[in-house]
Amino acid sequence: MKKSLKEIARLIEGEVVGNGSIEIEGVAGIEEAGKGEITFISDKKHLPLLETTQASAVIVSREIKEARVSLIRVENPYLAFSQVMRILAPYQKPTKGVHPSAIIPEGVDLGKEISIGAHSVIEEGVKIGDNTIIYPLVYMGKGSRIGRDCIVYPQVMIREGVEIGDRVIIHSGTVIGSDGFGYIPHKGRQHKVPQIGKVVIEDDVEIGANVTIDRATLGKTWIKRGVKIDNLVQIAHNVVIGEDSVIVAQVGISGSTEIGKGVTLAGQAGVAGHIKIGDKAIVGAQAGVTKSVLPKTIVSGYPARPHTQAKRIEASILRLPELYKLVRELKKRIEELEKKKEG
Amino acid sequence: MKKSLKEIARLIEGEVVGNGSIEIEGVAGIEEAGKGEITFISDKKHLPLLETTQASAVIVSREIKEARVSLIRVENPYLAFSQVMRILAPYQKPTKGVHPSAIIPEGVDLGKEISIGAHSVIEEGVKIGDNTIIYPLVYMGKGSRIGRDCIVYPQVMIREGVEIGDRVIIHSGTVIGSDGFGYIPHKGRQHKVPQIGKVVIEDDVEIGANVTIDRATLGKTWIKRGVKIDNLVQIAHNVVIGEDSVIVAQVGISGSTEIGKGVTLAGQAGVAGHIKIGDKAIVGAQAGVTKSVLPKTIVSGYPARPHTQAKRIEASILRLPELYKLVRELKKRIEELEKKKEG
Amino acid sequence: MKKSLKEIARLIEGEVVGNGSIEIEGVAGIEEAGKGEITFISDKKHLPLLETTQASAVIVSREIKEARVSLIRVENPYLAFSQVMRILAPYQKPTKGVHPSAIIPEGVDLGKEISIGAHSVIEEGVKIGDNTIIYPLVYMGKGSRIGRDCIVYPQVMIREGVEIGDRVIIHSGTVIGSDGFGYIPHKGRQHKVPQIGKVVIEDDVEIGANVTIDRATLGKTWIKRGVKIDNLVQIAHNVVIGEDSVIVAQVGISGSTEIGKGVTLAGQAGVAGHIKIGDKAIVGAQAGVTKSVLPKTIVSGYPARPHTQAKRIEASILRLPELYKLVRELKKRIEELEKKKEG
Repeated sequence: MKKSLKEIARLIEGEVVGNGSIEIEGVAGIEEAGKGEITFISDKKHLPLLETTQASAVIVSREIKEARVSLIRVENPYLAFSQVMRILAPYQKPTKGVHPSAIIPEGVDLGKEISIGAHSVIEEGVKIGDNTIIYPLVYMGKGSRIGRDCIVYPQVMIREGVEIGDRVIIHSGTVIGSDGFGYIPHKGRQHKVPQIGKVVIEDDVEIGANVTIDRATLGKTWIKRGVKIDNLVQIAHNVVIGEDSVIVAQVGISGSTEIGKGVTLAGQAGVAGHIKIGDKAIVGAQAGVTKSVLPKTIVSGYPARPHTQAKRIEASILRLPELYKLVRELKKRIEELEKKKEG
Repeated sequence: MKKSLKEIARLIEGEVVGNGSIEIEGVAGIEEAGKGEITFISDKKHLPLLETTQASAVIVSREIKEARVSLIRVENPYLAFSQVMRILAPYQKPTKGVHPSAIIPEGVDLGKEISIGAHSVIEEGVKIGDNTIIYPLVYMGKGSRIGRDCIVYPQVMIREGVEIGDRVIIHSGTVIGSDGFGYIPHKGRQHKVPQIGKVVIEDDVEIGANVTIDRATLGKTWIKRGVKIDNLVQIAHNVVIGEDSVIVAQVGISGSTEIGKGVTLAGQAGVAGHIKIGDKAIVGAQAGVTKSVLPKTIVSGYPARPHTQAKRIEASILRLPELYKLVRELKKRIEELEKKKEG
Repeated sequence: MKKSLKEIARLIEGEVVGNGSIEIEGVAGIEEAGKGEITFISDKKHLPLLETTQASAVIVSREIKEARVSLIRVENPYLAFSQVMRILAPYQKPTKGVHPSAIIPEGVDLGKEISIGAHSVIEEGVKIGDNTIIYPLVYMGKGSRIGRDCIVYPQVMIREGVEIGDRVIIHSGTVIGSDGFGYIPHKGRQHKVPQIGKVVIEDDVEIGANVTIDRATLGKTWIKRGVKIDNLVQIAHNVVIGEDSVIVAQVGISGSTEIGKGVTLAGQAGVAGHIKIGDKAIVGAQAGVTKSVLPKTIVSGYPARPHTQAKRIEASILRLPELYKLVRELKKRIEELEKKKEG
């Protein structure tokens, strides 16, 4: 794909400074970009690179007025650059249609313009929306449904009854709808509780690779609109995750916990069961959350505490050797005073 | 499936209070259940919901004598309810037989009434017991064996020589028998140690989704009867896990460690290699266990310590800012005393 | 496979003490080995087992001069034993050739003596080197390449454009080249940043089961020669891992971080984004690394600190209850002094 700088500027609603007729055919980072490529600066500390970059054009914020290279000035340079990536390096859709090796029973409800890859296995009662792409080696269990404009990468497993909205992206190796982890100890043995609920995934969710999302015991495990989930995350039965929340890699969320809207759970954090994380709360990396968290609160540490308290405790701990020294010194001075007293 | 309350009571060895001829056709939680549905209360704090539930019947403990809805009184309400789930919403077995797209070499030993799903690949010398269900896209390596009444969900990988008992359930994406992680550093490079042992999984084990269980270097990695393993758990080479232990999501167990019987490892805990966790010990969530743990001990924290000690240390840390304040104050009082002394 | 002790000694460049004509047909640990089997001792504390072992021969270090069993004396007993494992229990290659159920488009570049297993799906433009083994149910995306003498176990997913070197081993369930986790928050929603970079994996890398390695946003995620990665590890977009580094199970490495050469990241450690871990640094198990780490440094704890400092802090924390007691006592003594003063 090749476009003039002027045309790109028009598509991203930006303003050209310099030569608008340059041909742009690729994107790259500011230090790697060369002739014919466009790049961007979103962080002021990288502005000196405007002097040295080999790129043919740079997308910058409106504060920048001019430079030795051609510019496109926009509101949000990184957002604009990501649109340019989509224009110059568009997603390559696989061939449309159903591969002859895919297994599809009679009566499956297939939308228009879909793609189902080689060796995928679709069970009875499945419904797939328009323009959705199912890559090879995917499994969709009985009665599971997926909306339109979705992408399901190779080797995803969707079990029976799972419901998925529109524009959802699911990466490889992810398992949706496996049994929740529920047992009743009785006479020294663990007795399995059947897991007969389902999983509902709303529109615009993206789920990383090798994620596990368990089906509910009763009712549903529920991932709401716009949630983004990174790789190797564990979501237990009956968990609810609110709109636009971001769950970073290797996080674990225990059963029946409710995560609010716009929450961030940073990498490797763990959240106990049956609690609530309020809207827009932020949970630090590796934090262990054992109690409910209020909205807009930042928590960190193990066990997780409000971030400022965690930081204060952290600082107190670092000063401990010093405190021991001071207390030893005070002890000596007291002994000195006691001696004089008696003397 | 539809059954009278009386019939259900008989099957779960309970006693009806109220109208035994009501027809029950579904199960639900106490707040969601409606007409024609049965629910349960196992925790006393939910007893007030007996007054408001829309359920047609409730399973309760024998302490409850009567209520405005029909009851079934039993010893263990949750256990009884889980039996009712099995009766009213029974597991839907896939079609019996071998799907024509499955790859099965001559001489494989297949039990009666089995099911092997589409595109599964079975290698030479495999043995599959009666009534066992292999879902689509499963791989079973050379000479691996699985007993009777097992369920293997789609995309499970079982490598050569792995031995699996009866009534075992394995969820999707799980890898059993991958090479243990063993290298010998020599002249600055890592030299792979062949991993030629196997994995043995005994009867009544359940393994969650995307779990990894490595084969032994020599001998076996050994998961004993009744062990329950949640999603995304890592079990290294030569680990032994004792009967009825429960391993929660994202736990990691390092090489050659022995976990006793009836042990609980809570979520995201990590256990070092070559140590022993005694029978019925409990390891807290996110704990980092670096030394052997005695039987019936509760440990938590990082590094893991006996729970009461961990709690005491935890409390001391929270009081640190107060301690700093006190020491500063004492210092002043000492200075005061010293001044007077000299004065 | 059967060999005389003398022949084995010759192959591992060792020296026989005892009967060189004994026939050896198997390997085992020192406590399990029996007649016809060879074992080894690398740790001096196991030397007393020389007196009781049932093995026919033992590989020992050159310091050991003789014993009641036949010996092979070598420089590095464990390394030599691992060579013997390879000789007596060699890796069983699957049948050569392309299984008829594998999907391979025209024009794919297949090396000599390769094996492609049942139901694997290879896309256009793929290149596979000589002697490489692709097990069943593997996916290789458009234009991905893998070198010679590699082993790719069942159900591995390699996405478009991924480049893999020679002698690489990839275990089951591993996903290479999934999208990096990148979004721009804008007007309360998360906007996906296209991930159009690639993944490069150099020679002699081994990757465990259910690992995730994301493709770069731009440029490449880069795993250099000889890196060994255990199970369930997360490697984010644009990460670079230096030669011969060892990444233990369940580690997570955040975006754009650079890991040096010969680094060890122990189990469940987490490393923040955009930092550097110097050559030969060691990061302890479960450590949370938030800042760059200097070469040859050992860090541990949460947040990670130099190991000696972490240990000192750890010790101070353990002594806290004692400190509280001492401060209380000093307070009393001060009160006593104050009283006398006034009295």
